[in-house]
Amino acid sequence: MGIDLENDPAAPRPILRYDGGAFREETDWVAEEKALTILLDGEEFATMVCSPGDWEELVYGFLASEGIVRFASDVASLDIDAAAGFARVALVNPDAAGKASVSKRFIGSCCGKSRQFYFLNDARTAKTSTSRVTITVRQCFERMRDLQEGSDAFKRTGGLHNAALCTPEGVVLQRSDIGRHNALDKLLGRCLMDKRPLRDWIVAFSGRLSSEVVLKAAKLGAAVVLSKSAPTTLAVELAEDLGITAVGFIRGSSMNVYSHPERIIP
Amino acid sequence: MGIDLENDPAAPRPILRYDGGAFREETDWVAEEKALTILLDGEEFATMVCSPGDWEELVYGFLASEGIVRFASDVASLDIDAAAGFARVALVNPDAAGKASVSKRFIGSCCGKSRQFYFLNDARTAKTSTSRVTITVRQCFERMRDLQEGSDAFKRTGGLHNAALCTPEGVVLQRSDIGRHNALDKLLGRCLMDKRPLRDWIVAFSGRLSSEVVLKAAKLGAAVVLSKSAPTTLAVELAEDLGITAVGFIRGSSMNVYSHPERIIP
Repeated sequence: MGIDLENDPAAPRPILRYDGGAFREETDWVAEEKALTILLDGEEFATMVCSPGDWEELVYGFLASEGIVRFASDVASLDIDAAAGFARVALVNPDAAGKASVSKRFIGSCCGKSRQFYFLNDARTAKTSTSRVTITVRQCFERMRDLQEGSDAFKRTGGLHNAALCTPEGVVLQRSDIGRHNALDKLLGRCLMDKRPLRDWIVAFSGRLSSEVVLKAAKLGAAVVLSKSAPTTLAVELAEDLGITAVGFIRGSSMNVYSHPERIIP
Repeated sequence: MGIDLENDPAAPRPILRYDGGAFREETDWVAEEKALTILLDGEEFATMVCSPGDWEELVYGFLASEGIVRFASDVASLDIDAAAGFARVALVNPDAAGKASVSKRFIGSCCGKSRQFYFLNDARTAKTSTSRVTITVRQCFERMRDLQEGSDAFKRTGGLHNAALCTPEGVVLQRSDIGRHNALDKLLGRCLMDKRPLRDWIVAFSGRLSSEVVLKAAKLGAAVVLSKSAPTTLAVELAEDLGITAVGFIRGSSMNVYSHPERIIP
């Protein structure tokens, strides 16, 4: 299949499959889950569970999302030990403002830090969108279809979340992870590393729209968030406040618009 | 619809629905998302985002899962302020062993503390199953069907996770929450409150089988975990280690068994 096994987010496993009334032994692809601990200036900062691969992006994006860094150049050095699951980060300014606002904690595979909007770091990093970008209904369906078709690992395992930065016309960058928020953090990290502008994006996402997902999208500069799944009330309220068009249940030929419908063209 | 609006995990919202080539205004049910902060002996212990309702169970289950309490009687008092989103807990023994092992942190809507198995509190609370319970293939399909049909709020919103404690013959207890792990913690809390034995359970779950989910199931004394979704490699390894039969992709008339198949009867 031409897969890079070292960084493959899926691993072959022996399973017992029941189908057509009988069990048989098979080999199936299962999503890999690894622990990554970030050591920030020598201190344990957070441990996340995530897919292997793209860890440099994940670390940059996570630190930016937490308000620890604003630019990739705020990081003096980043050393990733993939085998042991450690990322050692040294900041240019170890007394950076954001650091004191975050306590050491554990971040699960699909964890978030929602309601941090009400904490110091989210208030600093979640931006209100004033974007004038528009997208047609047809483009919404097309970008969700691109998202689902763009992840080979998802197709093999069924166990990964996908997130993509898009323009109305197409996907610019797509990442996958077992952790829904990690996929979004990887996009943010890549943007910082490439100095891409954080505005006017259409963000397509495979999971539900929780408050955490809307906050992560705001940090990416999203104007529109597309999802095939359900939103929560808090996510809808945050999207309304942050000027983001939230679209859910994009399935077949129907979809629901929960906030700022002015960007969607019939 | 005869719904208790005060504790309803879903709220009606105005949406713009696109279907059949046109937009129209509708009212739809959206899953409620609330923040709940646990103050443990006066100190902020954790903030989680969750559905309204069953918060007493959630607090007991979360504290037990974290290794802070073993029995409901370890809690001297529990006072829930639902409007403000606070639970004030006083322990019988404020110097309980588990407390010092957990640092203050934020728990997201679908967050977990996976890999805590390798931390002190999981090693203390995740049990290896030696259960001799067995379940037929047909019963696996039936319990997953029961789970999906048993949640009115899920059917209305599509945005909740469901978890159920079952015997092979039927569902004993079912809970829903926007947070996948909260649904499992509510089951654990209810078991502690009712002094139910924590062994031999079949746990049916609507979400993916991550390491956190397998650890939560182990804390419930699960012998078998059933899911309609995909597992991760770490979840399969933990299930193998903890003596748990992990079954995924239960869909239509097929399913995959990832560990301890000896409990599944064709």
